[in-house]
Amino acid sequence: MMHAEILPIGDEIVSGQIVDTNSPWLSARLEELGVHVLYHTSVGDEIDPLADTFRLAVARSDIVIATGGLGPTADDLTRPALAKAVGRKLVTDQQALEHIRQMFARRKRPMPKSNEVQAEFPEGSRVVRNPSGTAPGIELDAPRPNGQVCRVVCLPGVPAEMKEMWHDSVAARLRQFGAGKRLIRRKLIKCFGAGESQMEAMLPEGFLRSRRPAIGITASQTSIIFRLSGEGTTEAECFVDMQPAIATIRERLGNLVFGEDDDELEHAVVRLLRQQKKTLAVAEWGTAGLVSEWLGAVPESDAVFRGGLVAASAEALKGPLGIAAELLERHAPGSREVVEAMAAGARQRFGVDLALAAGRFPPLDPSAKEPKPVVFALAGPAGVTAREVPFAGHPAVLKVYCAKQALNTVRLAMMGK
Amino acid sequence: MMHAEILPIGDEIVSGQIVDTNSPWLSARLEELGVHVLYHTSVGDEIDPLADTFRLAVARSDIVIATGGLGPTADDLTRPALAKAVGRKLVTDQQALEHIRQMFARRKRPMPKSNEVQAEFPEGSRVVRNPSGTAPGIELDAPRPNGQVCRVVCLPGVPAEMKEMWHDSVAARLRQFGAGKRLIRRKLIKCFGAGESQMEAMLPEGFLRSRRPAIGITASQTSIIFRLSGEGTTEAECFVDMQPAIATIRERLGNLVFGEDDDELEHAVVRLLRQQKKTLAVAEWGTAGLVSEWLGAVPESDAVFRGGLVAASAEALKGPLGIAAELLERHAPGSREVVEAMAAGARQRFGVDLALAAGRFPPLDPSAKEPKPVVFALAGPAGVTAREVPFAGHPAVLKVYCAKQALNTVRLAMMGK
Repeated sequence: MMHAEILPIGDEIVSGQIVDTNSPWLSARLEELGVHVLYHTSVGDEIDPLADTFRLAVARSDIVIATGGLGPTADDLTRPALAKAVGRKLVTDQQALEHIRQMFARRKRPMPKSNEVQAEFPEGSRVVRNPSGTAPGIELDAPRPNGQVCRVVCLPGVPAEMKEMWHDSVAARLRQFGAGKRLIRRKLIKCFGAGESQMEAMLPEGFLRSRRPAIGITASQTSIIFRLSGEGTTEAECFVDMQPAIATIRERLGNLVFGEDDDELEHAVVRLLRQQKKTLAVAEWGTAGLVSEWLGAVPESDAVFRGGLVAASAEALKGPLGIAAELLERHAPGSREVVEAMAAGARQRFGVDLALAAGRFPPLDPSAKEPKPVVFALAGPAGVTAREVPFAGHPAVLKVYCAKQALNTVRLAMMGK
Repeated sequence: MMHAEILPIGDEIVSGQIVDTNSPWLSARLEELGVHVLYHTSVGDEIDPLADTFRLAVARSDIVIATGGLGPTADDLTRPALAKAVGRKLVTDQQALEHIRQMFARRKRPMPKSNEVQAEFPEGSRVVRNPSGTAPGIELDAPRPNGQVCRVVCLPGVPAEMKEMWHDSVAARLRQFGAGKRLIRRKLIKCFGAGESQMEAMLPEGFLRSRRPAIGITASQTSIIFRLSGEGTTEAECFVDMQPAIATIRERLGNLVFGEDDDELEHAVVRLLRQQKKTLAVAEWGTAGLVSEWLGAVPESDAVFRGGLVAASAEALKGPLGIAAELLERHAPGSREVVEAMAAGARQRFGVDLALAAGRFPPLDPSAKEPKPVVFALAGPAGVTAREVPFAGHPAVLKVYCAKQALNTVRLAMMGK
């Protein structure tokens, strides 16, 4: 089995100013190729520690993936540090230079002289194409003390560019280098509507201690995620082991399961809307635009999601939704009456089949014995229904939790529950 | 200056299943004590790589903080790996054993025999009290090849326990060990509206190579951030060094600077609205609710931000904003005419002083020679103005980029630019 080391580079990482999410992502991708990641080493923007880190990583790993430090400024030291570590000169790579020129030309901006430094590669390197950014990546095969070869790949630290480059060429080139002979595949089963231990109690005794497939459970942003992983030489072989466990989870948890893998609740909702050919609009207060933003980000949602109204004041309910000032004077903004009027108003004004409303959050009062609920309402051809959800939990996840409760309101209604 | 290395330990980290947020937190705390963190090394649950990592860290650092691997199960290897690295025997620490017994007694649960292993410390270690968990921490002073001493501290991986232990005793004991004689304080200057290299070119030659104060520059979600750090024996002294550099950045970059430290563009906008006692509403299409969500999340924004309309279809412009069907038939959804009408309609319907509109994004067409622009409009008492921004860059950050362009439209207008 091949071993890899990931090197996230930059003062902003070792000084704690940003959380490195690139390395977990790369670890998961490498694992899919059957490559075992042994180390993540973050190092700051200083040439000698950086060169030492490259040297050690090359000595102990088959594959080294570095992220960051490829920019044009003086503190971008990945190129010279790698050159120093492997004892090669920096030379201008014409292909890389051409790539950088083209990126500036496409953006119709003059290319500053300082960006030329981004084409200075350790001798013998190859360019890794960066379809969306100016910094080309570097691929270099370096000899190891044990006589073998280490494949070093340097990618930009910008997550979107790094990921695009991985899919564009890095993964395929690592396969040519010998990775991917044994595969590991993961399956996620996503649930919402109950806690971790409640769901665990609904499953057979010892279910989570299974090793083949390995099964884990995590709470993430108030969703509960079952992680299954299987091994094999083909994709199909990896999944065979997982099928019975997936069936058990789906059977025992029923409607608590809303999707798999990258699915979020909004994907489930858009799927139902498309299947049933219904249009949806949203009127939200406490969730502050999150429900609309999530729905709008689902590919192909534009055929079924018409738009939303984000209220940050009672004024926003009058003009855009046509709610009478009188009703707003009589009832509190988060009350059942107002939230139902939001749903009815949105249905009429947006001209949709279904309108979802999420009420204003009650003021946070830690001394209150019983927290006030948040009201959600759904307006459809048959009228308006409302449900109340107790407002509890950590303030940091309340908005996300309520946005998910809102989406779950539509999901359960459309499934006829 | 003392140097530190942080060792996050565990398969779940190197395999990418969880994102390590402990290390950035510890880096920030160490930096406040004037300790410079040079490396974060994550390593999996394997005894030899773990012992090698401890050995290297002890050799090159004054302080080593490890997190994780202190549990009672077979894959918790921090104790034996540290013992191996420093060449000491594991012995049962009576104080640690007593601590574990008490934790179980307090929870009224019997203590499994397997938990006794958590009291096996490398000879010469001291116990670090864990007020809330069963795993006591380890403190050990180990000799370095250079004749100095390295302070090793092992803490649990559970963030809440780790943080509590830091405040309870670790920080104070590191001060006794010699940290905190010199402090480091950081200042961030946040900019938007030009690229990294463009901004660098506006600054004096060599500005970013300054070491006192140290100055770095990073692009984060299309904002450009200058990171300054100053050293001293008091807080005030730390900031003295930074003042001239901050003044230079502000003077040279002018309106590109929108804030400091935790500021985002929406904070700058809310500040201006409050100062000038104006109310704002938003009508957005391509940015899909992001502008409303950001504004709504600013503390005290509710006095000035009234709400927003999120359009995902032309239908959403008719009912809620009162835009005539005729106009929408004559002009494309992202056109100047429609975006201006969105701003005017939002101003009237939300009853606000200022209404900001962000247009629909043009369809992504990689083959098009010239990307179409995104239109932003602002309606105020004097009428509607619009600006067009070229639509370029990575699709993953386009929404964020355009939401920032939208906020910057209001910011610049309110500053009279």
